[in-house]
Amino acid sequence: MKFKVNKKAIAKHISIVQKAISNRTTLPILEGIKIVANHNIITLTATDSETAIKTSFPAIVEEEGTIVVNSRLFGDIIRKLPDDIITIEVSNYNMNILCSNSEFNIQCQNSEEFPDLPNLGDIKNLKINANDFKDAIRKTSFAVSLDETRATLTGVLMDIVDSKITFVALDGFRMALKKISIDSNINTKAIIPARNCNDLIKIIEDDVIDIDIEIGINIIKFDLGDTIFYANLLGSEFFQYEGLIKDNYKINSKVKKSDFQSSLERASLLAKEDRANLVKLSVSEDIIEIRSNSEIGSSMEIVPAETMGGELDIAFNSKYIIEGLKNLESDEITLSFTDSVNPTIIREIDDNSYIYLVLPVRLAN
Amino acid sequence: MKFKVNKKAIAKHISIVQKAISNRTTLPILEGIKIVANHNIITLTATDSETAIKTSFPAIVEEEGTIVVNSRLFGDIIRKLPDDIITIEVSNYNMNILCSNSEFNIQCQNSEEFPDLPNLGDIKNLKINANDFKDAIRKTSFAVSLDETRATLTGVLMDIVDSKITFVALDGFRMALKKISIDSNINTKAIIPARNCNDLIKIIEDDVIDIDIEIGINIIKFDLGDTIFYANLLGSEFFQYEGLIKDNYKINSKVKKSDFQSSLERASLLAKEDRANLVKLSVSEDIIEIRSNSEIGSSMEIVPAETMGGELDIAFNSKYIIEGLKNLESDEITLSFTDSVNPTIIREIDDNSYIYLVLPVRLAN
Repeated sequence: MKFKVNKKAIAKHISIVQKAISNRTTLPILEGIKIVANHNIITLTATDSETAIKTSFPAIVEEEGTIVVNSRLFGDIIRKLPDDIITIEVSNYNMNILCSNSEFNIQCQNSEEFPDLPNLGDIKNLKINANDFKDAIRKTSFAVSLDETRATLTGVLMDIVDSKITFVALDGFRMALKKISIDSNINTKAIIPARNCNDLIKIIEDDVIDIDIEIGINIIKFDLGDTIFYANLLGSEFFQYEGLIKDNYKINSKVKKSDFQSSLERASLLAKEDRANLVKLSVSEDIIEIRSNSEIGSSMEIVPAETMGGELDIAFNSKYIIEGLKNLESDEITLSFTDSVNPTIIREIDDNSYIYLVLPVRLAN
Repeated sequence: MKFKVNKKAIAKHISIVQKAISNRTTLPILEGIKIVANHNIITLTATDSETAIKTSFPAIVEEEGTIVVNSRLFGDIIRKLPDDIITIEVSNYNMNILCSNSEFNIQCQNSEEFPDLPNLGDIKNLKINANDFKDAIRKTSFAVSLDETRATLTGVLMDIVDSKITFVALDGFRMALKKISIDSNINTKAIIPARNCNDLIKIIEDDVIDIDIEIGINIIKFDLGDTIFYANLLGSEFFQYEGLIKDNYKINSKVKKSDFQSSLERASLLAKEDRANLVKLSVSEDIIEIRSNSEIGSSMEIVPAETMGGELDIAFNSKYIIEGLKNLESDEITLSFTDSVNPTIIREIDDNSYIYLVLPVRLAN
């Protein structure tokens, strides 16, 4: 195998496949990147057996071939080389890297030991706008459960029904839900591990317009053009989230998001973690009063509000509200309450496609 | 006590005194900042019993007084308040903080329990240019020893002789030495803990021109104008560093610093820590060849050089050379060798005031 390639090009694609390399693998072959040089195209593949990433880019291939090279060392060397043409030549499992005044020789592994890419079996196809997808993942994946004993809740559900995808993540304390439209009439569910979602949106570049998705029985495949991303699915039996959203929110408050968020952040300074970051809200017609206290002191914040439908005292874990607020983009937001024990819903003022739902904390008295 | 102050002003000075607060103190009073309101000046003091910082700023003092407040909580609250006027009022060990729509109440401690500032005893005075001082500390303090059993080597020596200060730090593998001129004829030595040096240069603001230094028996005091910094000295018996610098450097190589540094960084990728980051240099008339190897591979780098005085093979721990190179500012640098076992000296091409000295690694053959 022998090829010449621009440093920046190969460095970029190494960073992409490295997202599929696990730090904890015990199989040496999975610490490697498989390189295939064929018809002036270089293809890099990496996998941790739960995820796989394959990415391709053009190069001047002088001799075709296939090899597996240690990912960390290869990536570190390429990234530190000057911004110039790199010549890579492999013979007898030795990779020679030449660039300007630098020369490296690295031992490689046989590519026949490298696992094959997964087979999806029967698939369902859809196409999704890349920006819509990134936005939906960002606004939901932070809300997944960290409890590995409830595996499906550690993923983001894509609930695909009637030309819409509802992205849902929840952890028993709060739920984030984002709806986007697609041009497809398939109906299916897929639960993608949150970790994979976050890696995936990092490698979707700005010039990607649409993503082709294939959903198999246990595996989902995202085709970004140059790069293909495979992830194992977490089954398809998710929590019945639809029942959580009622339509009897009697009390609705409009507040300025930045005021509400910074007041909650200040109140949190006296709402200790060991006491569930407890903040108490008193919602009335013109203001929301936020109170917190600990052994060392207390705080009181007043946030101007426009409330319709009555007054209410309610308590929250401030952390869950603040995390949701960070995903709302409008200046003004709506808080919708039923009472002090049922979930509260937080939305942008003029966009119902994103819903963030938080369970209040029940107070003793 | 009651005063009004701009948020930014008090937040800045809290950050300054917090550098003297230890995270590991067992004395609750040392977790506090002492606040004195007097004649329209607020003075904040903090200490961890090895360092003390006192800083002052103007405010509208409506009632004079003294109190100690928890540093972390007070700092966090003030920093999160809006950029507005803050009113702070203390009565009965309760501090009330009012700002815009926010109100906090925090329990405080009696300032009588707070330790006094240290007494320096007989002192020697000098004045030093603030930029010279910061530059000298940055270029030396990274080279101190981390070995607490050789306490004096964990500090930076200020060796003051004949209107010059020589700043020296060394750890048995390398030495960094920077000379600056001062307008004083005192002769003395002071060893300042590296940790304190680094905190100190962070709080010297750009508008500070000169620093007044008072050296007592065990304590040094830096007067920056608004802020005074006290540090305990680490004795005055330092290693006899003068003997390390010989004048018999036969072989001198001139190289481009950036080329030499990036070649060493690449070679380090194959020079493992468990093998002392070993890189081998072959110095000849026109080039320096750098080689490294590990179980998985090898590297070879060629750096153009202008060498006078002969050829040489020598080996180093690459980490020590790279750390020194980062402090050299000129495009071209000089490497001066005697042989493969005695220290090598690295300098800027046209500045002898900074010397970085590295011991080579002796090779078996």
